[in-house]
Amino acid sequence: MSEKPRVLVAGASGFTGALAAQIVDRHPGMRLVAVTSRSDAGTRLDRLYPRYRVPLELTELDLEALDGVDAAIVAYPHGAAAPTVAALREQGIVVADLSADFRLRDGETYERWYGEHGAPQLFGGAVYGLAELYREQLREAKLAAIPGCYPTASVLALAPLAERGLLRDVVIDAKQGVSGAGRGGGDAMHYVSMDENAFAYKTEGHRHRPEIEQELAALGAAAPVTFVPHLLPLDQGELTSCYAQLSEPIGKAELQALYAERYAAEPFVQAVGRPPGLRDVRDSNECHVYVTVTDRERVLAFSAIDNLWKGASGQAVQCLNLMLGLDETEGLG
Amino acid sequence: MSEKPRVLVAGASGFTGALAAQIVDRHPGMRLVAVTSRSDAGTRLDRLYPRYRVPLELTELDLEALDGVDAAIVAYPHGAAAPTVAALREQGIVVADLSADFRLRDGETYERWYGEHGAPQLFGGAVYGLAELYREQLREAKLAAIPGCYPTASVLALAPLAERGLLRDVVIDAKQGVSGAGRGGGDAMHYVSMDENAFAYKTEGHRHRPEIEQELAALGAAAPVTFVPHLLPLDQGELTSCYAQLSEPIGKAELQALYAERYAAEPFVQAVGRPPGLRDVRDSNECHVYVTVTDRERVLAFSAIDNLWKGASGQAVQCLNLMLGLDETEGLG
Amino acid sequence: MSEKPRVLVAGASGFTGALAAQIVDRHPGMRLVAVTSRSDAGTRLDRLYPRYRVPLELTELDLEALDGVDAAIVAYPHGAAAPTVAALREQGIVVADLSADFRLRDGETYERWYGEHGAPQLFGGAVYGLAELYREQLREAKLAAIPGCYPTASVLALAPLAERGLLRDVVIDAKQGVSGAGRGGGDAMHYVSMDENAFAYKTEGHRHRPEIEQELAALGAAAPVTFVPHLLPLDQGELTSCYAQLSEPIGKAELQALYAERYAAEPFVQAVGRPPGLRDVRDSNECHVYVTVTDRERVLAFSAIDNLWKGASGQAVQCLNLMLGLDETEGLG
Amino acid sequence: MSEKPRVLVAGASGFTGALAAQIVDRHPGMRLVAVTSRSDAGTRLDRLYPRYRVPLELTELDLEALDGVDAAIVAYPHGAAAPTVAALREQGIVVADLSADFRLRDGETYERWYGEHGAPQLFGGAVYGLAELYREQLREAKLAAIPGCYPTASVLALAPLAERGLLRDVVIDAKQGVSGAGRGGGDAMHYVSMDENAFAYKTEGHRHRPEIEQELAALGAAAPVTFVPHLLPLDQGELTSCYAQLSEPIGKAELQALYAERYAAEPFVQAVGRPPGLRDVRDSNECHVYVTVTDRERVLAFSAIDNLWKGASGQAVQCLNLMLGLDETEGLG
Repeated sequence: MSEKPRVLVAGASGFTGALAAQIVDRHPGMRLVAVTSRSDAGTRLDRLYPRYRVPLELTELDLEALDGVDAAIVAYPHGAAAPTVAALREQGIVVADLSADFRLRDGETYERWYGEHGAPQLFGGAVYGLAELYREQLREAKLAAIPGCYPTASVLALAPLAERGLLRDVVIDAKQGVSGAGRGGGDAMHYVSMDENAFAYKTEGHRHRPEIEQELAALGAAAPVTFVPHLLPLDQGELTSCYAQLSEPIGKAELQALYAERYAAEPFVQAVGRPPGLRDVRDSNECHVYVTVTDRERVLAFSAIDNLWKGASGQAVQCLNLMLGLDETEGLG
Repeated sequence: MSEKPRVLVAGASGFTGALAAQIVDRHPGMRLVAVTSRSDAGTRLDRLYPRYRVPLELTELDLEALDGVDAAIVAYPHGAAAPTVAALREQGIVVADLSADFRLRDGETYERWYGEHGAPQLFGGAVYGLAELYREQLREAKLAAIPGCYPTASVLALAPLAERGLLRDVVIDAKQGVSGAGRGGGDAMHYVSMDENAFAYKTEGHRHRPEIEQELAALGAAAPVTFVPHLLPLDQGELTSCYAQLSEPIGKAELQALYAERYAAEPFVQAVGRPPGLRDVRDSNECHVYVTVTDRERVLAFSAIDNLWKGASGQAVQCLNLMLGLDETEGLG
Repeated sequence: MSEKPRVLVAGASGFTGALAAQIVDRHPGMRLVAVTSRSDAGTRLDRLYPRYRVPLELTELDLEALDGVDAAIVAYPHGAAAPTVAALREQGIVVADLSADFRLRDGETYERWYGEHGAPQLFGGAVYGLAELYREQLREAKLAAIPGCYPTASVLALAPLAERGLLRDVVIDAKQGVSGAGRGGGDAMHYVSMDENAFAYKTEGHRHRPEIEQELAALGAAAPVTFVPHLLPLDQGELTSCYAQLSEPIGKAELQALYAERYAAEPFVQAVGRPPGLRDVRDSNECHVYVTVTDRERVLAFSAIDNLWKGASGQAVQCLNLMLGLDETEGLG
Repeated sequence: MSEKPRVLVAGASGFTGALAAQIVDRHPGMRLVAVTSRSDAGTRLDRLYPRYRVPLELTELDLEALDGVDAAIVAYPHGAAAPTVAALREQGIVVADLSADFRLRDGETYERWYGEHGAPQLFGGAVYGLAELYREQLREAKLAAIPGCYPTASVLALAPLAERGLLRDVVIDAKQGVSGAGRGGGDAMHYVSMDENAFAYKTEGHRHRPEIEQELAALGAAAPVTFVPHLLPLDQGELTSCYAQLSEPIGKAELQALYAERYAAEPFVQAVGRPPGLRDVRDSNECHVYVTVTDRERVLAFSAIDNLWKGASGQAVQCLNLMLGLDETEGLG
């Protein structure tokens, strides 16, 4: 039997990095060789996140000491990831990057939302890490830009319509649990602030919107997107409710058949028979999708994912599986 | 000093009836004389709802023994309310009805959504119980049809646009706590079913939609409405996110000024400076409204209410105050 | 009619100070004249806590400019309160102090748990602010040391046993919502840390224990107390479960009669007929108490309060009412 | 490679049966051959519990058609399980029974708490399914009586003290999430009833207490046990706080060493360094235990488990692993 690929998780003290470390640690086809963190170096990861049970000590990332590392998941903040990703790639390490740094393909759009890029030489050099759209490219890729949680859920909800050229205009009302806001957050993310609460935020414009528009356009739908995120009083989970206008009328049965067929062979996406609930996908890499038409002939498409799994770390491992020649679902059951 | 009006709450064992009983019981200008219930007759209300602290025993409603009752809040299921409301009105009792039985003004629409009407002679004879729209009519009314919680939040979010004739098309994504589903509900409303969950329901058509359309049309906006309700893992609260298309472009500052002016004199509606949160209005009769424009020029209007208060029982007392000649805000502080 | 007493709330940006400001603001017999805060001076309180709807700007406390202030509620951290309380008292201002600085009557015990005292000249000069034990003294007092939330719930649960000299040994297992931990708290109080969680803390010794022992001893029960606090995934509420050994056997009916009689005349304490639940007392100044005996003859006493109300701010106003000659329950309905 | 044992789950529509079905379904060393239910026969299990993803239809149990079934997990109500367990055993099927029917070894105690036994010929014929105490016996057993969730957590918290003969008297304050109450439950388990709530129940005596006493006595501690359960507003999890009096003084360091040593080789029990939290063990078969001594020399022992996993279904599979000659931890990672 050949040696398992040796995987590093950089930025493992945040929510998504810690979960990525856990998934890799339990993965039958990977070997977790290091977990790094600037802020929590010296702490064991299973002390910081007991429920993930990863018995490794967090260390500072040393780019000079990566001999034998085959692949890395980078869970750094937007902007901070690019230089590290570039350094890892220079050493031939396969990278799944959880930041936004390589997701957008238009430089101007990147700069408008995130500022100057930290590794312009690599910009445009990643495959967008949504296996349901880019499976074959990911098999050849060395760098995957893992989508944001909102684009993952939104694009999977709308892809069958976009691919058929049906999508003309869309409103996406997205709702997410508090883990989506990451560690920190101060008073606003205090238990007492979020308990029995719910609200919209970044209503004037959220930087996941250009990412959604980019991917829908790539599928053939250059539709304007209205996207508004909300926070809900729960831990993990993300629900998108999409209100679509189509270029031609199409009935509910036909739409549901379209979705069923589109996702029939997908291991992690399931077209379900009723509006999906967050409990059904919690702690899994699943995406549940439902499409219907109202009695006023508006098309509705819903998707539910776990924002930390299919919206981040699970998806990163799904991509790594493809990039490393493993079975796409391995370690994600 | 004149005698306080004597008020009966019929159907006081459900969530909205029980809260109505509490509000009336503490109301300095009303006297709660009886609370009735078929299913829980014989039980004291403060045993069923200790936190409301209403020390009265639930009895069966006896329409022959209502001497001295001046006003009633009826909290019966849709369809069941009409005959009782009619009987109360025949005795000259002022009624605030929490059911849908007298909200719609078009008979066919009523029948399509609710079936045959239980008191056709009274159909059309109520004032719609939204003081922000029908304040003067309510002062003269003897029967108020208290709006559904979704129409309350939706119409207050959109009224300033509708009144100006700006509203062309609207998508309403509404999110509500579990109390909105009422008592009962079986497995689906079990704590374990709703905890860490969220989902859309009645996606193909919810009977609050015609009510919303009726009121927006009455304001001058015959716009088609797409309305989708969701359940959230919290107790009380309702958030509507409205995505509006306008008949002419109008900027954010102008819109916010329009809302501020429209609601400046309203005692219970407040145009706030950021997307409203449910905690801010919990256990109050307040409605917080926020309007803005996205960087893609879509108009967004949000509203937050407590579904049991401004969405039902608080609003019923607000209407009764007007109908009985009391100060509109009395007992609702 | 005489002028209403003018009340200042110092430290109004924390959870208990903000609620105290709200209660005073709505109090028919008091006038809220100022709310102060070091950290949030310049911010309006209704921006920081929209749901309390107190339309005053937070200012820094200026001890030179308190002309006309009759009374103050001080919500400062332990240790920091004493000098301010002393300065207010020197100006003749009646004070209800929410800190621990004047609760203990033994100097050594104070120093062991809190360090050096900030106003030793006043130490021992306060009345313990539990009206159920010290009502008459409070009517004459100028300084009330408002009990901690845990001592309030624990002492009310056990007082009838202690007063009869029955209490020999007691274990108190206390459970509190997250608001008890106050603002701040960092990662540990993040929504994601507390959601679906519960745990004990300060298991080796919590500084509320000597306070509980002091008050039980004052009632005649010099019993050793084991006290362990826990945090629960909820906002407001505190439940104590007390496991008592008595000096003589006494049956359930007799115990329940003892509790019923002891609290019959108390406006805020109610001996209830089943183990009390936190929902029943949420957002109220009520304390529900239940006593029983197990089939193994262990005596159990339970109490439920809202930690921010009866455990802090509501109780402060209850004491101020007595100190200012108002009705004890005014403004607390 | 030999054939995998074929496993049936009877009563798979309840919370514990459904989870047992999921664990068996994913178990690399078992084959799930049938899931049965009287109330939900005809429904697919993944429709009832989507998140468990078990693609089998529930059928009614047919005792005449069990050819080829090697083992069964029975998740029936107390009293109802015994006859079915007996019938399965007569066919040579290895059984892990989640009910209380075979846990107690004293007939009179059983009858006092549960009534007449449904299969007296088998009474006393089971091994108590707590591998940490009965590992070797379970390897030889054909029938395991899986402990209640409260006894599991309580006995694991106290076993090291009981085994050394140190335990003299103990108070157990147990706190559990709502899933412990099972499906059904009506109004009391409605989301709105439990949200922001917590309370004690069955305070006069809970039938898990004799089970705890039986097991502590078997370890050498015939101590009287005071046991009081509480419900918390969370889904899965159980925390016990045990207040022990010892027969001789023993320091904190020595106690912690005793616990560390006792559980060092246990795959699922971990002596941790601070009071355990429910999040840390959620959705796992882990039990976290912590022991300490207060500054008043009371010994405290805490344990945290997931009531559905280590408190029921995970433990059942742990026992089946032993009974079927598999690795004890297989399928429980």
